[in-house]
Amino acid sequence: MSNRLETGIRVVLVGTTHPGNIGAAARAMKTMGLQDLALVQPKVYPSAEATVRAAGADNILVDAPVCETLEEGLAGCGLVVGTSARRRSIAWPVLTPEECARKMLEFNGKAAVVFGREHSGLTNVELEQCHYMVQISTNPDFASLNVASAVQVLAYELRKQWESMTPDEIVATQRREEPPADAAHLHDFYLNLEKTLAMLDYAPHRSSRLMRRLHRLFNRAAPTETEINLLHGILAAARDVASKADGENS
Amino acid sequence: MSNRLETGIRVVLVGTTHPGNIGAAARAMKTMGLQDLALVQPKVYPSAEATVRAAGADNILVDAPVCETLEEGLAGCGLVVGTSARRRSIAWPVLTPEECARKMLEFNGKAAVVFGREHSGLTNVELEQCHYMVQISTNPDFASLNVASAVQVLAYELRKQWESMTPDEIVATQRREEPPADAAHLHDFYLNLEKTLAMLDYAPHRSSRLMRRLHRLFNRAAPTETEINLLHGILAAARDVASKADGENS
Repeated sequence: MSNRLETGIRVVLVGTTHPGNIGAAARAMKTMGLQDLALVQPKVYPSAEATVRAAGADNILVDAPVCETLEEGLAGCGLVVGTSARRRSIAWPVLTPEECARKMLEFNGKAAVVFGREHSGLTNVELEQCHYMVQISTNPDFASLNVASAVQVLAYELRKQWESMTPDEIVATQRREEPPADAAHLHDFYLNLEKTLAMLDYAPHRSSRLMRRLHRLFNRAAPTETEINLLHGILAAARDVASKADGENS
Repeated sequence: MSNRLETGIRVVLVGTTHPGNIGAAARAMKTMGLQDLALVQPKVYPSAEATVRAAGADNILVDAPVCETLEEGLAGCGLVVGTSARRRSIAWPVLTPEECARKMLEFNGKAAVVFGREHSGLTNVELEQCHYMVQISTNPDFASLNVASAVQVLAYELRKQWESMTPDEIVATQRREEPPADAAHLHDFYLNLEKTLAMLDYAPHRSSRLMRRLHRLFNRAAPTETEINLLHGILAAARDVASKADGENS
């Protein structure tokens, strides 16, 4: 008997240094009823230490794909939430763990929560693939939350909110219209957008700051597949015009 | 600048087997702003592994007393909540982590949350010293929550509820009447009660089940020092009568 926690929520660990943390994260997930884990470039893996710390949740490790890129780890996910302890210059929309859990549970499609490296977190490029950030409130003098502990807190809050959801809320979720496009398609759109801006000789496209703002804007809108196709159409039209202009100038 | 999390809440770890879990628990506490830890009969302690896993929270380990008995670990605590994964034949009043956090924060005095051994939890004798139980809801097929993870979840919920409390709620807490007696005085009362029942030749006092029920009853009432003194007075009167009766019979 599968449920939203088992099939709708993915945990993605990026660049984890200590294999023990991977095992502890799998255990934390399983105690709360989650089971979909993806590992992106773990430093030491597979590892006996991971299996020991999983303490009976090793089936989650066995099933977890080991990916080269975050895009791969997010395959099929339409909602992506990143975790961050650091303050960023460009503010992402920031959720509390409770808000994050509600949003992920109410989302009609696969939702992922992404945890970065022990010491450096997620890179800006990785953050650009996130629709939201979630921040666990900590002691301002000691914010050093272990990555598996952060997985535990989010998984706990997911289970807590899931148990509090009424059948009505679940039905409301199921009744939604077309779901947002998955992360890979959104990623393709961003690449196309950047290339198109270059063809249009729109200078600011070289600024990573501009692209970050555009990511945030579209991520917040969470476009559907239909909308993504529409946007691709507009970009194609712009590129046709750019090609023609280029031809006339040559 | 101290606050209720720092000074009002104690975490007590009983019979912890793995020193790594002690260190991880200290780190979990510190990230959430807690700092009062007591260790009762830790198996291997002090330990380099505990210090490593504390990862900067070793000041909490340095300050933590190592106690022979749970009573000692609970010195000065007027509200005691035990954690348990196991179902018990006699039901304790069971709280969710959220309810537990509110109760501990609103309590006017020191409140303790007690975590048992990795494999066997708390003994019935230890549970008798608890006013409430808190249960973290888990996957029914895999309830194997690591003890430091359980500390993390409770500490997270304590911080979350603390941050959500209004100044009014805090003031309301401060305005309370006489606080409940501390755990040691309540414990003395139970010893006196049991001895007195024996002197009264009240046979069922030999049943641990009866004593457990009495513990639950008084724990729920959370008697004040004044009330405890009153109860001691009643027991003393009963023992006087018993002694006289014994003298007349001999």
